Amino acid sequence: MSRPGRLIGVGLGPGDPELMTLKAVKALQAAPVVAYFAKAGQKGRARKTADGFILPHQKEAPLVYPMTTEIAFDDPRYRCALSAFYAEAAERLAGYLGEGEDVALLCEGDPLFFGSFMHVFVRLEQRFRTGIVPGVAAMSGAWSAAALPMTWGDDALIVLAGTLPRELLVEKLKAADAAVVMKIGRNLERVRSALKEAGMHERAVYVEYATMSGQRVQRLAERDDAAAPYFSLILAPGQGRRP
Amino acid sequence: MSRPGRLIGVGLGPGDPELMTLKAVKALQAAPVVAYFAKAGQKGRARKTADGFILPHQKEAPLVYPMTTEIAFDDPRYRCALSAFYAEAAERLAGYLGEGEDVALLCEGDPLFFGSFMHVFVRLEQRFRTGIVPGVAAMSGAWSAAALPMTWGDDALIVLAGTLPRELLVEKLKAADAAVVMKIGRNLERVRSALKEAGMHERAVYVEYATMSGQRVQRLAERDDAAAPYFSLILAPGQGRRP
Repeated sequence: MSRPGRLIGVGLGPGDPELMTLKAVKALQAAPVVAYFAKAGQKGRARKTADGFILPHQKEAPLVYPMTTEIAFDDPRYRCALSAFYAEAAERLAGYLGEGEDVALLCEGDPLFFGSFMHVFVRLEQRFRTGIVPGVAAMSGAWSAAALPMTWGDDALIVLAGTLPRELLVEKLKAADAAVVMKIGRNLERVRSALKEAGMHERAVYVEYATMSGQRVQRLAERDDAAAPYFSLILAPGQGRRP
Repeated sequence: MSRPGRLIGVGLGPGDPELMTLKAVKALQAAPVVAYFAKAGQKGRARKTADGFILPHQKEAPLVYPMTTEIAFDDPRYRCALSAFYAEAAERLAGYLGEGEDVALLCEGDPLFFGSFMHVFVRLEQRFRTGIVPGVAAMSGAWSAAALPMTWGDDALIVLAGTLPRELLVEKLKAADAAVVMKIGRNLERVRSALKEAGMHERAVYVEYATMSGQRVQRLAERDDAAAPYFSLILAPGQGRRP
């Protein structure tokens, strides 16, 4: 019997393939199996980013998310469907690993920062050797695209989801000097109102498709409240010590 | 007269040279002048990380910090000395830029996230064209070294400095689900006490020299209160939704 393979979470960065690290390219190309998450009928952002780097002999293992629009996100059935999906994805990768093949699981951004990778990782880390290649986070791509210095001196930065209730958003924003708001979607009006109450709206910047084609940067004050795409963020920079 | 050069902030990542991005390597090698911050008598971490990539024909411009131990950090003279230093560093780089030479200013981690780069950037961005190459943040290097999934679902992450007063630390930690504490230095006892009050101590992990030689990862509960080196962080992972 061959020695079991290793599961490697490979962070690909914010979208521009040039923002992959040297280590990510090596880890990706060294693994016999390249796995990635994707929506049904789509190639998936991670796979697209890795396009120029996958070698002809490598096997590909797309992990296709179950329907995400038919069932509402807060429906318990959604959680069940996702749970079954991650369990199944983990077992599929365990098949390769058990055969002695290393698996590089591609991750948008950084593998351990809000990544789907983590759900597979926690299901396999006790059974197989693992490795993590950190990546440039989506938020770094966004504030670089905006050329926006984010945090100075002893600034505290909060990173939060725009899906939170308004009062929680305000409370958390007020605890920080700088903020990144993810998962904006249809929540822009509520997020804007919370940023106003926290005194951050005037300096906030909206960024979508950072480092990708379609990149757009504008002051939040000049952005309307229309729904935002998945790849979008709001940034409120800190104003700390500047010698 | 030649066209003025461009100032490029090049994020090098957490320390392991392999965690430089493809774009960082290109930007670094394309610039006639490579600048970096360093302490007197030392090469500096950024320059060390870039060691294998600087080409023989490139000019180097070390920007040497003024004394940082003779004057206490909270002494107004410290701020003045630093301010003069950044102004002087900016003028020095302006010299190259004015001659039409691009300058790659090397940055540990990510250029716009607590970076010295920002102090030079804000002094030159009105006068010269600029560019930013984002990098893998030190904290990503740390939680990857610890193989620690940091944030799940709608977790809020706070990144803060261990130099803050205890009450502020507690307040900010309580506003979040996951935390990164930087600037630990001699503040470990206070930080620990704040993490305990916020209910995060048991799951906190201490990491030093992540991705560098000397890397060390341990549960914070097993770490004593001795002073921590500059390259150290405390991580408290979130416990959010895990389908």
